Amino acid sequence: MKKLNVELGEGSYSILIGSDLLAQSGVLFAANGVKGRIMVVTNPTVAQWYLEPLMDSLRSSGYQAEAFLIPDGEEYKSLEQANRIYDQLVKGKYDRKSVLVALGGGVIGDLTGFVAATYMRGIRFIQVPTTLLAQVDSSIGGKTAVNHPQGKNLIGVFYQPSLVVSDVATFGTLPDREFSSGMVEVIKHGVILDPEYFKMLLNELPALKTRKPELMTEIVEGSCRIKARIVQEDEKETGLRGILNFGHTIGHALESITDYQYYKHGEAVAVGILAALKIAIRNDTLQDSGLEQSLAFLFGALDLPTAIPGLNVAEIISLLYLDKKVEYGKVRWVLPERLGQVTISNEIPGETVKDTLLELGGV
Amino acid sequence: MKKLNVELGEGSYSILIGSDLLAQSGVLFAANGVKGRIMVVTNPTVAQWYLEPLMDSLRSSGYQAEAFLIPDGEEYKSLEQANRIYDQLVKGKYDRKSVLVALGGGVIGDLTGFVAATYMRGIRFIQVPTTLLAQVDSSIGGKTAVNHPQGKNLIGVFYQPSLVVSDVATFGTLPDREFSSGMVEVIKHGVILDPEYFKMLLNELPALKTRKPELMTEIVEGSCRIKARIVQEDEKETGLRGILNFGHTIGHALESITDYQYYKHGEAVAVGILAALKIAIRNDTLQDSGLEQSLAFLFGALDLPTAIPGLNVAEIISLLYLDKKVEYGKVRWVLPERLGQVTISNEIPGETVKDTLLELGGV
Repeated sequence: MKKLNVELGEGSYSILIGSDLLAQSGVLFAANGVKGRIMVVTNPTVAQWYLEPLMDSLRSSGYQAEAFLIPDGEEYKSLEQANRIYDQLVKGKYDRKSVLVALGGGVIGDLTGFVAATYMRGIRFIQVPTTLLAQVDSSIGGKTAVNHPQGKNLIGVFYQPSLVVSDVATFGTLPDREFSSGMVEVIKHGVILDPEYFKMLLNELPALKTRKPELMTEIVEGSCRIKARIVQEDEKETGLRGILNFGHTIGHALESITDYQYYKHGEAVAVGILAALKIAIRNDTLQDSGLEQSLAFLFGALDLPTAIPGLNVAEIISLLYLDKKVEYGKVRWVLPERLGQVTISNEIPGETVKDTLLELGGV
Repeated sequence: MKKLNVELGEGSYSILIGSDLLAQSGVLFAANGVKGRIMVVTNPTVAQWYLEPLMDSLRSSGYQAEAFLIPDGEEYKSLEQANRIYDQLVKGKYDRKSVLVALGGGVIGDLTGFVAATYMRGIRFIQVPTTLLAQVDSSIGGKTAVNHPQGKNLIGVFYQPSLVVSDVATFGTLPDREFSSGMVEVIKHGVILDPEYFKMLLNELPALKTRKPELMTEIVEGSCRIKARIVQEDEKETGLRGILNFGHTIGHALESITDYQYYKHGEAVAVGILAALKIAIRNDTLQDSGLEQSLAFLFGALDLPTAIPGLNVAEIISLLYLDKKVEYGKVRWVLPERLGQVTISNEIPGETVKDTLLELGGV
C-alpha cells in the first residue's frame, strides 16, 4: 500500500493506494482517526460488487454505518439527488460529527462531496473511488459539484475529503471504455507536468492494458502525486491549477452538446486535448513535434475518439462561453508548449478555434 | 462612516457602517476594488425603498447591474429559490468574476451568500444589509445557508463576503418588531463578551429606541467588532465561536415548532436567552444575580416575548437534537456565568431543561 499526503493546511489529508483495500477499510478508517456515524453513498452498479465488503469491514471495526443509493448515471449528479441525501441525513438525525463516504466513480464522489460540504456547513467526507478516473482525478483537489441543466459542475464548492482510500483491484470490474476514459487524465498529467511519467506510460502501455495491480498502484500514485503538487500550490484555482483544465475547454462543450450521452468524460477530454494541440500548432506555439504522434499512439491503443464527426461548430463555440473558465467574457485556453509544459492564453482568435473544430470533423 | 476590517487571511474583508451609504454604494464598491458584472438579489419589500438608489448609484459608477427578486419571507430561504437564482445566473451567462449583491435582511443575505458560495464553486459576494439583525449578526462571519423543511440553516457553507455596506438609515423603514428582534443579538453580544457595551445599551435605551443614525452607527460598529473578534479567532466554529449560539439552542427549536410563523428570529432568541439563564440558575452556575433583572428590563422595554405559553415541551426537547450544535448526540448549551462571560456545557440533565421550559409556560 502507498500513502500520499496532500498538504493543504487545515484541509490536509492522506490518499491510500493499493490492492484489496476495500475489505480493510474499517481498519484503515480507524487508523486514520475516523469516528462518528457513517452514511455510505453509492449506486446499484457499484454496490453489487463493493458495498458488502465495505460495510462488513466498517461494521467489524465497530462503525455504525448505513448505505444510501443514488441511481447510476451523470444525470443524477443533480441538486435533486443532493436533496434526497439531505432528507435522509435529516431523517436519520445525522449530526455535525457524522461522516459521508462516497463509494463509486466521479458522479458519486462529486455529489457526495457537495452534500458533505453543505450539510450543516460541512461534515467529514471520505472518498472510496472505484474507477480509474475518480482515483486519479476527481478524488484529489476538493472539487465537489452537481450539474445544472445548462452546464456541468456549475453548482459546487471546494471541499477537501478527510481521507481517500483507492483500491486498484476495483478496476477489475471497469468496462474498457471507462478504463480508457480514466487513462486520458493519467496521460494529461504527464503532458502538462511530468515527461518521465508520460514516457513510463508509453513504455508500459501493453502491461497497463492488463490492469496489473502493482502497475496500477504505481500509475495512480504517480497521477495523484502530480495533481497533488498542483493543488497544493493553488487550491482554489486562481492560477497554476488552471493547467489541469488542459483538454477540458472543448471537452466540456462536447459533453454538453451531446447531452452527456455520447462521450465518456475522458473521451471528450481526449478530443479536447487533440483540439488544444491543433490550436497550439495553428497558433505557432507548439515546440515539440513528437507530442502529436505520441498522443495519437496512446489514444489509438486505448480506442479513444479522435474526431467530432457531424457536431455543430458554432454551437460548440457558443458553449465555450458558459464554461467556468471564462473570465470577463474571455475563454481561457490551456495549450501545450512541449511535453511537460503548457501555457494559458485567453487571446486565441475565434477563427483559429473554428478552423480547428472543422479540421476535427465538425460542421 | 466607520470602517471595520475583519481579518480572516484570504477571506478578509471590510465592513462600512454609516448613514445614507446606499446612495454612495457605487463609489464605495469602486473604492474597495469591486469589478465585474453585478446581480443584486433582494425582495419586493426592500426593493420598494432601496433598490432604485442602489442601482442608480452602481450604474452611475459604471457598473453593469441587474436585479433579481425573491419573495419576502423565511420560507423562501430554500434550495428552490437558490435554484431560481442559479437559473438566472446561467441564463445571463454570469461568469466566475461576477458579483452577487444581497440587498435585504438575513434571509436575502444567507440565501444569496449560499448561491455565491456554490455558483461555479464561488463568486464574489457583497452584503448590503437593511435590517438591524442582518447588520449586527448575519452579515458577519460568513455563515450562508438555506433551510431544510425539517430544520433551519441545515444546508449551507462558510463563505466570506468581499465587502459589507451597512447603511443604518435603512432602520427608518424597519417595523418595531424587526428592530427589537435585531436588538436581541446586540444585547447577546454584550452578555457573552462585553460588559461595557451591555452597560452602554442599558444607558442609551431611550435614545436607541428613536434609532438615531449616530447612535445606531456606534451600536452596529460595536456589535460587529465583538462578533468579528470571535469569528477571527474561530472562523469555522470549532470552539470559541460556539458562544455566539447563546440563546439559539432553544431559540431555533421555538422557531421550528411554530413553523417560523409566530416568532421573529430575535424574539425566539430572547426567550432562548431567558431559558439559558434559568438553566444556569437551576444548574447553580450563574454567578451574577443582576443579569436576570437587566435582561428583563431591556427585553421589557423592547416589547420582546418572555414566555412560551402553550407550546409542547416534549416536542421542543426532541427538536433540540436536530440542532447543528448537537455533537455525538449531545446538546451543547451556552450558559451565562456572569455579564460578559458564558460557558459551554453538554452535560445538562434533560429534567433541568424540561423544568425550565415548563417554568416558561410550556405544557
